[in-house]
Amino acid sequence: MGNFHELLDHEVTLAFMRYGTIVVLKMMLMSTITAFFRMKKKVRDESWSYEKKQCVDSFPRIHLNDLENIIPFLFAGFFYSFSGVSLSTALLHYRIFLGSRIFHTIAYLVPLPQPSRGLAWMAGYLVTFSMMYKVIMIAFTVS
Amino acid sequence: MGNFHELLDHEVTLAFMRYGTIVVLKMMLMSTITAFFRMKKKVRDESWSYEKKQCVDSFPRIHLNDLENIIPFLFAGFFYSFSGVSLSTALLHYRIFLGSRIFHTIAYLVPLPQPSRGLAWMAGYLVTFSMMYKVIMIAFTVS
Amino acid sequence: MGNFHELLDHEVTLAFMRYGTIVVLKMMLMSTITAFFRMKKKVRDESWSYEKKQCVDSFPRIHLNDLENIIPFLFAGFFYSFSGVSLSTALLHYRIFLGSRIFHTIAYLVPLPQPSRGLAWMAGYLVTFSMMYKVIMIAFTVS
Repeated sequence: MGNFHELLDHEVTLAFMRYGTIVVLKMMLMSTITAFFRMKKKVRDESWSYEKKQCVDSFPRIHLNDLENIIPFLFAGFFYSFSGVSLSTALLHYRIFLGSRIFHTIAYLVPLPQPSRGLAWMAGYLVTFSMMYKVIMIAFTVS
Repeated sequence: MGNFHELLDHEVTLAFMRYGTIVVLKMMLMSTITAFFRMKKKVRDESWSYEKKQCVDSFPRIHLNDLENIIPFLFAGFFYSFSGVSLSTALLHYRIFLGSRIFHTIAYLVPLPQPSRGLAWMAGYLVTFSMMYKVIMIAFTVS
Repeated sequence: MGNFHELLDHEVTLAFMRYGTIVVLKMMLMSTITAFFRMKKKVRDESWSYEKKQCVDSFPRIHLNDLENIIPFLFAGFFYSFSGVSLSTALLHYRIFLGSRIFHTIAYLVPLPQPSRGLAWMAGYLVTFSMMYKVIMIAFTVS
């Protein structure tokens, strides 16, 4: 278990593990909801109206949006946790991202009027960009 | 090569490298099949019936399903390999996941009657969830 | 910052950080373009012709293609950077992949006549495969 403790001694990486896991769990939950709605769709396919079908079809799209935002976060967040930032700064980044994704999902499911979902997406996007900027700055100045 | 040997000394991480690579290779193979069928589709686009087109369109969907299941596995599996589990437990998790994904693909391509594909997806999902549970338990109790 | 310097001492991993970040940044840029075009689509939805709608709908597909190629690259590239290859060989792999993805995007957006996009995809695919081959060879011979 030597390698493990070495990893956990680094508390920013530990924070990344926590928030990364919650974000991925949220994504997996969406996957279950998608599967559940698809099953429902198959059963009622003949009786449903066109509008209802449209609504069900939007579930994969939100899932795709999750994928395309979470992958850059996981990549950037991992290297960001080794970039020597303070724990509080890293936590701020991870928490804003987690919050923005949860709010984005809620805005999709309720649904809330449009600017809200766009703003949630924008917040997560900017946080990821801020982390990538830090990673790139370090990667290109160190050697 | 210092860093490398350190990584490989940890035999659970080595097991993750093996099974992760096979899972990703399987996904890349699907990508080739998708491209191959898309090319075929373009050639015969005018002569094909609606039913045949539907069948071809389902290839990207299975690929998307791969993406949405393999990303949580890679994320959870990586940290799981550092969580101090025994090699046999880790191998059990990795092997069930690999088996469930291969069976899922076969069930999609043959195709086998419906409950089989759903059960394969469920097996992979539960294994990923079990790994995330372990990771989360450690991440929240260590510090 | 101990863990960080250890990571950065390994210059191949540093190279992976650089090229991986650029590749992911390119993907995030596509995400913005997609969102921008979707917004435009919503505004003009009634007045647009069918051909224009088709063009806009192709944006998510290129994004999906990015996802399905970049995930194997990030996975394989990370372990590849620990596989004891020389810096020049690793740089060759990372640079060809980055170039192939950028050319693929340009070929999609201009658009260039078909064989060009297929060849770009093929180049990225082969480079990823070459890295996975190296990773698998090491994973199965070391222990």
